[in-house]
Amino acid sequence: MSEIDVNKRILGENDRRALGNSLFLAGRGMPCLNVISSPGAGKTTLLARTIKAMGDSIRIGVIEGDITTSLDAEKIRSAGGVAIQINTDGACHLSAAQVFEALGKLPLDDLDMIVIENVGNLVCPSAFALGESAKVAVLSVAEGDDKPAKYPALFARSRALLINKMDLLGPAVDFDMDRATADVRALNKDVEIFPVSAVTGQGMEGWYEWLREQVRRERCRL
Amino acid sequence: MSEIDVNKRILGENDRRALGNSLFLAGRGMPCLNVISSPGAGKTTLLARTIKAMGDSIRIGVIEGDITTSLDAEKIRSAGGVAIQINTDGACHLSAAQVFEALGKLPLDDLDMIVIENVGNLVCPSAFALGESAKVAVLSVAEGDDKPAKYPALFARSRALLINKMDLLGPAVDFDMDRATADVRALNKDVEIFPVSAVTGQGMEGWYEWLREQVRRERCRL
Repeated sequence: MSEIDVNKRILGENDRRALGNSLFLAGRGMPCLNVISSPGAGKTTLLARTIKAMGDSIRIGVIEGDITTSLDAEKIRSAGGVAIQINTDGACHLSAAQVFEALGKLPLDDLDMIVIENVGNLVCPSAFALGESAKVAVLSVAEGDDKPAKYPALFARSRALLINKMDLLGPAVDFDMDRATADVRALNKDVEIFPVSAVTGQGMEGWYEWLREQVRRERCRL
Repeated sequence: MSEIDVNKRILGENDRRALGNSLFLAGRGMPCLNVISSPGAGKTTLLARTIKAMGDSIRIGVIEGDITTSLDAEKIRSAGGVAIQINTDGACHLSAAQVFEALGKLPLDDLDMIVIENVGNLVCPSAFALGESAKVAVLSVAEGDDKPAKYPALFARSRALLINKMDLLGPAVDFDMDRATADVRALNKDVEIFPVSAVTGQGMEGWYEWLREQVRRERCRL
């Protein structure tokens, strides 16, 4: 009996759809970030603050991926952002097909950038392309400095890494920035690393400038 | 063309193996906990402290599941525990077959309880039975009080929930214990909830007593 490699088939279908998203967005000169982290690393708070700070200079449309609830889309809307909520009904990551459907619901003519907030999961989402121009990893210092070594796939594939909740650093949260940075650099020498606090705003300006650069770069490709 | 439900086939095979583990452990009167959380919720620190506190009164054998590295098994051994490290090489959860193999490497005659520390992932591991007598969820207050609502499957299936890093509660970490507890109770009215700090030891006595009860209960079934 011949065998079917199921993972290859499923990934193949997703990859084709991701390529479609990627070409569609490239045609508009629109960057699209796929933001991935553990649950509770602070992705939504980070996006809400970013949307407020960018205002009309970079208009961000957010695609929120969650297993259930619309809590995150509501937070983005409260911050003045445009958000489409996708519920995966148990699935541990977003698919390119879901993102394509959400893109159709966003007012693309009024936006400069798409940000996809993936399901909180440090493992699975990094294996599924969504058509993004870049993956962005978020790691909270409360998770510990050993996470890049223990969960390498995401850190190896991300163009930017936000090390979040810097305001918690101190005696109670012992996070060795040199160790984490060295482990990330060993996987990915070109990744941009931004130590930030989405709550206090510390370090966010470098991230904002990186976002502006993404918009300039995608427009230049048109 | 007839269709094959791939998920059903894969889960079916894992469930058969999980039942095998479960019967094997029941034959020895040995409880087995499947500990699940996001990355960095503090599972390893919690287990290391528990092993030190229990000493010879409950001898715990640990099966460490990680995508890569042996960092967690080393931490458990430094705390005086017995640990077998499983590397899943990218897979987002442990399987019952991997646990069976690890059980064969543990000195079972010298142990009173097995604790499996699953891959850090709040989504996938709760869908795969390993033969455990109980699932135990760990949630760090740094992850936020909305996680039970957003990731319900684990909280619905756990017999105990440790709300960890209570020492971080304060102005910088705003976690509404009433909200989190109410959301968990709505999913699972019988779950035992232990607010703890594995770093300071706060609240751990209730958890230790629950562990002693698991050992008594499994022995009574023999």
